[in-house]
Amino acid sequence: MKPQPSLGIFSQEYFMKQAFQQALLAAEEGEIPVGAVVVSGNRIIAQTYNQVERLNDVTAHAEILALTAASEAIGNKYLMDCTLYVTLEPCLMCAGALRWSQLGKLVFAAQDDKNGFMRYGREILHPQTKVAYGVMEEECKTLLKEFFSKLRK
Amino acid sequence: MKPQPSLGIFSQEYFMKQAFQQALLAAEEGEIPVGAVVVSGNRIIAQTYNQVERLNDVTAHAEILALTAASEAIGNKYLMDCTLYVTLEPCLMCAGALRWSQLGKLVFAAQDDKNGFMRYGREILHPQTKVAYGVMEEECKTLLKEFFSKLRK
Repeated sequence: MKPQPSLGIFSQEYFMKQAFQQALLAAEEGEIPVGAVVVSGNRIIAQTYNQVERLNDVTAHAEILALTAASEAIGNKYLMDCTLYVTLEPCLMCAGALRWSQLGKLVFAAQDDKNGFMRYGREILHPQTKVAYGVMEEECKTLLKEFFSKLRK
Repeated sequence: MKPQPSLGIFSQEYFMKQAFQQALLAAEEGEIPVGAVVVSGNRIIAQTYNQVERLNDVTAHAEILALTAASEAIGNKYLMDCTLYVTLEPCLMCAGALRWSQLGKLVFAAQDDKNGFMRYGREILHPQTKVAYGVMEEECKTLLKEFFSKLRK
């Protein structure tokens, strides 16, 4: 089998688009629109969206649900061979969870200046976790902005 | 009804003892022995222990499970009228979760210099969350020490 291309069908944009689809499902349900997918070997092993309102549970962020689902899928609580794509910069709770999971790579779209973990520095994550951001930033930001502006009406 | 005494049956020690009982259950199952209870109006509404190994899920810390169970019990994702008793200083993930829950009060027993949230300052928690620690510190520390020294054998 030929090695998978790093661009094209299995690009970061491709997987972030799937996370974005999850965020749209959240928006449809009146949840803050954040979606996530976990990828292992170019295969999506978990796809989740924020369910804080539906589950009435502040811990039900897309990333927490994604880690739980991904560990279930591969039968391993450590995710060093996995990449998490998420439409918004993880908060401290989620970044702390990603650290425990020893996640291989984190890719996020929009930055979150208020609640994002990056203001504490990326040392919050596991030292082995690679980080990329800005993929599909505008789309994910716009989705969040539109959600909050509707809420205010 | 007379006001509840702050010492005696409903003291911090009383509730921490219940959290310690949960930690013992964790130890029996080979989990890192951390237990938690959530109290509202002197009533225990949730009691949980670390289940990372059993659930194969790094997010299954006692505190995360406690928040989920407490919100389910009172039908509210916000826990401003609740106190969480936990046998070990919460990690960043758990402290981040406590922040989202707007927890009324956190009481923890043993400090955790390596993974505890306090090295980042208590600003990690919600500004309205009161904090106390050191209750039953020795017992909870000893339980953890014994667990890890057995592991190493």
